Amino acid sequence: NQRLSSLLEAISSPADLRALPKTKLPAVAEEIRDILIETVSRRGGHLASSLGAVELAIALHYCYKTPEDKLLWDVGHQAYAHKILTGRRERFDSLRAYKGISGFPRISESEYDNLSVGHSSTSISAGLGMALARDLRGESHGVVAVIGDGSLSSGLAFEGLNNFGSSSTNMTVVLNDNEMSISKNVGALSRYLTRLLTDKRYNRIKSDVWELLGNLHNVGERIRTLVHSVDDAVKHFVIPGKLFEDMGLRYFGPIDGHNINDMLEIFQFVRNAAKGPVLVHVITKKGKGYRFAEKDATKYHGIGCFSRSTGDVIAKGNGVPSYSEVVGKTLTEIAAENEDLVAITAAMPDGTGLKHFRDAYPKRFFDVGIAESHAVTFAAGLALRGLRPVVAVYSTFLQRAYDQIIHDVALDKLNVVFCVDRAGLVGEDGPTHHGMFDLSFLRTVPNLTIMAPADEAELRDMLFTAIHAIDGPVCIRYPRGCGRGIQIDSPPATISQLSPRTIRKGTKLAIVSVGHALTTAECVCDLLKDQNINPTLIDARFVKPLDLDFYRVLTTNHDFVFTIEHNTITGGFGCGVLELAASEGVQTPIIPIGYPDRFVTHGKMTELSEITGMTPEKITARIMEFAVTAGRRKAKNGQ
Amino acid sequence: NQRLSSLLEAISSPADLRALPKTKLPAVAEEIRDILIETVSRRGGHLASSLGAVELAIALHYCYKTPEDKLLWDVGHQAYAHKILTGRRERFDSLRAYKGISGFPRISESEYDNLSVGHSSTSISAGLGMALARDLRGESHGVVAVIGDGSLSSGLAFEGLNNFGSSSTNMTVVLNDNEMSISKNVGALSRYLTRLLTDKRYNRIKSDVWELLGNLHNVGERIRTLVHSVDDAVKHFVIPGKLFEDMGLRYFGPIDGHNINDMLEIFQFVRNAAKGPVLVHVITKKGKGYRFAEKDATKYHGIGCFSRSTGDVIAKGNGVPSYSEVVGKTLTEIAAENEDLVAITAAMPDGTGLKHFRDAYPKRFFDVGIAESHAVTFAAGLALRGLRPVVAVYSTFLQRAYDQIIHDVALDKLNVVFCVDRAGLVGEDGPTHHGMFDLSFLRTVPNLTIMAPADEAELRDMLFTAIHAIDGPVCIRYPRGCGRGIQIDSPPATISQLSPRTIRKGTKLAIVSVGHALTTAECVCDLLKDQNINPTLIDARFVKPLDLDFYRVLTTNHDFVFTIEHNTITGGFGCGVLELAASEGVQTPIIPIGYPDRFVTHGKMTELSEITGMTPEKITARIMEFAVTAGRRKAKNGQ
Repeated sequence: NQRLSSLLEAISSPADLRALPKTKLPAVAEEIRDILIETVSRRGGHLASSLGAVELAIALHYCYKTPEDKLLWDVGHQAYAHKILTGRRERFDSLRAYKGISGFPRISESEYDNLSVGHSSTSISAGLGMALARDLRGESHGVVAVIGDGSLSSGLAFEGLNNFGSSSTNMTVVLNDNEMSISKNVGALSRYLTRLLTDKRYNRIKSDVWELLGNLHNVGERIRTLVHSVDDAVKHFVIPGKLFEDMGLRYFGPIDGHNINDMLEIFQFVRNAAKGPVLVHVITKKGKGYRFAEKDATKYHGIGCFSRSTGDVIAKGNGVPSYSEVVGKTLTEIAAENEDLVAITAAMPDGTGLKHFRDAYPKRFFDVGIAESHAVTFAAGLALRGLRPVVAVYSTFLQRAYDQIIHDVALDKLNVVFCVDRAGLVGEDGPTHHGMFDLSFLRTVPNLTIMAPADEAELRDMLFTAIHAIDGPVCIRYPRGCGRGIQIDSPPATISQLSPRTIRKGTKLAIVSVGHALTTAECVCDLLKDQNINPTLIDARFVKPLDLDFYRVLTTNHDFVFTIEHNTITGGFGCGVLELAASEGVQTPIIPIGYPDRFVTHGKMTELSEITGMTPEKITARIMEFAVTAGRRKAKNGQ
Repeated sequence: NQRLSSLLEAISSPADLRALPKTKLPAVAEEIRDILIETVSRRGGHLASSLGAVELAIALHYCYKTPEDKLLWDVGHQAYAHKILTGRRERFDSLRAYKGISGFPRISESEYDNLSVGHSSTSISAGLGMALARDLRGESHGVVAVIGDGSLSSGLAFEGLNNFGSSSTNMTVVLNDNEMSISKNVGALSRYLTRLLTDKRYNRIKSDVWELLGNLHNVGERIRTLVHSVDDAVKHFVIPGKLFEDMGLRYFGPIDGHNINDMLEIFQFVRNAAKGPVLVHVITKKGKGYRFAEKDATKYHGIGCFSRSTGDVIAKGNGVPSYSEVVGKTLTEIAAENEDLVAITAAMPDGTGLKHFRDAYPKRFFDVGIAESHAVTFAAGLALRGLRPVVAVYSTFLQRAYDQIIHDVALDKLNVVFCVDRAGLVGEDGPTHHGMFDLSFLRTVPNLTIMAPADEAELRDMLFTAIHAIDGPVCIRYPRGCGRGIQIDSPPATISQLSPRTIRKGTKLAIVSVGHALTTAECVCDLLKDQNINPTLIDARFVKPLDLDFYRVLTTNHDFVFTIEHNTITGGFGCGVLELAASEGVQTPIIPIGYPDRFVTHGKMTELSEITGMTPEKITARIMEFAVTAGRRKAKNGQ
């Protein structure tokens, strides 16, 4: 496609872009779109957001002197055009691949990436830090934070805005308003933004008022003074964005985020002439320029491989439903019998599977927007008045509600169920999205029950048990992606015994597997069998509390116990077994196996399993090494 | 004091209050104030906030039918009058005492306490949950959330407001505006609220505009229509609280929060006639009615015992400076040599000791308000541009920034230092304020260094080391209250060896103490000596990373290792030593000693040490039991 890529081929940095005449910029946008659609169709990724921000990325790099001026992309899933413009076009084909280009800005990847992101709503706070550091150091570069209207609904963004608006530092927040977070955006602020765009009355009043005021010039002194006040008052009123002005920001907009010339005009003025806190309100369309994505931006928000010509997702796997689907459908089943059951998502009705619940019970479903902290405290309020709230949230985002789980839910032992989705590594989205820490941070919380299903049937029973048979808060954690394909033909039921499940009875060596690690653990058992070792295999089911009697017997009856979990080794499930053994005076060696204590990059799950040592082969090798070393030690000690 | 308490003696519930004529209510307020000042002068507590909310508590219980109507007090430190009015007057003398009345609302304490609180900004979210639960269940009670202007600066409150404003449910948020959080409030929203009160122009314009519009009634049709628009526009403008109206709330106020009649009028109207989201803006004075507290509300925010007549705090202890003081002063010392050093607090310049830094280096000091998440991400921004930010925050509030520590700081290994104050149990403030979890949740974070000083000299060196000698983020955790009274006569210096410190060399048994547990650990050693046991005593200093060689030798050279930490046993320091030993194949028994896995009530530190098993006597007994049991087991096994 030689013709289409001709302009971009000459752009190896934003300086090259800035050397182009303005008139060429729309063509650059077209070329970028072509690369985005082509690459994401083959590699998957965040298409819709990035398509919406192509002209914005061009306009910003054209007006600001990057990398001296600091450009921050909130969340970062809209930054593909930015990556292509900043020297990463040729490597862009490695998007989200192991050792390839990250799907998000990473300061380790480029001097143009000023903030590593993935979670939303950090850009204003971090940008303010950069701007004030600049002021203290007597530097003069610009700072621009691009944030979506969805991200603005998070408390962190508000805290940043509240501090920014009371400062006098030069920074520009670009509000990239597409009326979406991942799904349709929610909340009062979102409604306000919509009113800014749709209430034509504002502009009509504005012109009419000037006319009226002009007609009054002959009245007496008192009226003249008064008119001046009214002028002021009305001027303030009819300027859209009064809410932002009240928060201390100078407001510009709304402007069309696909009209490069309009944006250049505003950004050039703002960069060169505006002082203090500024907000530029840019209206964009998610999925812009690819008709399928324009029509269904939620589907194309984060998407796997798809056919460019038809827009159809290329199905992977065997049609086995995902854990999220199972959660959504099972909750809908349970809700039919239990009218107290209500469900909450933080902007993820699709990702969490709760859309099934929403469609069946719209009044009992709450999408609170990107606001995980609020989601949990809100659930506490519902539980305090007798309802049974279920909060479905990704493991990595639940990190934002750690205090609310402790302070608002667990302290009073409230009946809130947390469905902790995307637990463990998630693959291509990388370190900001892996669910590596949940077992560890949740285990610290008193009164909390933590379960992990080994398959979708167990997940269904755990949901039922959490809602009907457990007093107090419960977390159920499960991974991204498909279940094991277990046939489900009975309604969910209570797990009768709140204890681990023995999968295989063996001798000498026991393996305790947590949740979806069971597939790996079974392979490990098979590999050990080849070495004439016949281990006992346990599906832990409960991470907290641990069944004291069960583990006492297990450790007594075996020479070694290995635990396997898709969680950081630090403070995780295996650590809980160690604590229990220590407090019981158990001497049997217990060896936790999990992710090492470091951040894990992006890549295919198989690649990430390799580098974290979590493949069946690597785990088997570790077990063998331990058993052999310990055997030698025993022999040496003459025991 | 018979005369003063005559009215309150007849009030054993809000129903009794509601039976009084309005004219008696100011006298009730006086009686309550008297009890508050008297009790807090003897017991310590949150005086200034509660004095400010006396009339508010009376007006709300008078207008609303509590407990059917649900009244929520954000943070809860302003709820003493509420406690006295709701059947707890006679027990009020046990305020904050072990088994006595809590300093905060607790649902377990009274049916009038609808939400357990202590951390700020939860009331809107929880109240919204209660209101929507009521709607789903077809009930009709009122829900009122009282929140301070300081609490409103937290992101959680904004998330709640954003959801509340887009709902159509009946709930009233009472904004208790005293222009303070603990210190003077900060941020753009706070400035906006101040403008609402001070900008007299609003009211002038309002009346003048009505007059002008009246004078125009004879003009033609087009102008008449236009006038209507202008009327609308100006009316919107001149109504204060437009920002809240833009957020979907009907705004009432500002009204005088010490004028009971004004409040009764508004609350009666709001309760009976207002539909949907309502915000009532009430202006109060922190410390109202006690002249010393009115003059210095920060001092009387949370205060120890004081003389009622002079207002002077009754000094406890020996004049040894607190850990917080040491931090504030040491950072000020270091800042003299290091101009990149900047300091951040979330509304706690006094509590964290940073006021010393602020006074010396005002431009390098940032109070971001009650916004811990922002504080951390903001620090990341400062660090990314080459500064060395220190964030001083209480352990319990750092729980609100767990995700920001992981995602914004640790992922890129940024040079941010966290001073984790009030670590361990804090005494009378109880379960919402104990710093029980920090070692556990911080230990999960990759790239993080965690230190704990055993005394103030070590604290100084650790601060210096964190700022000058460690690459990446560092947490230093220390307790509430005084240090050990170590004489400090040298400047802070780098800890040359990043390893534990051996305090006593002994045999067979080793005790590893974390941070301020050293005082207890030394007593334990003395008690063990009485039993002819001579343990090795180690000051761990580093919680993460652990010095592999050191612990390998320690465990090899001893028969038992006990760890002692003021942190939950779950996932804490001892757990880290267990993990290390497990991965190394060490067989020496390691027994972690810390707080049990449950919430701990309020009371004196000595009482709480008893119930958590953390007194030297109880720890010694546990160690003896372990050693004896293990000895028997060894004998039995003939080893």
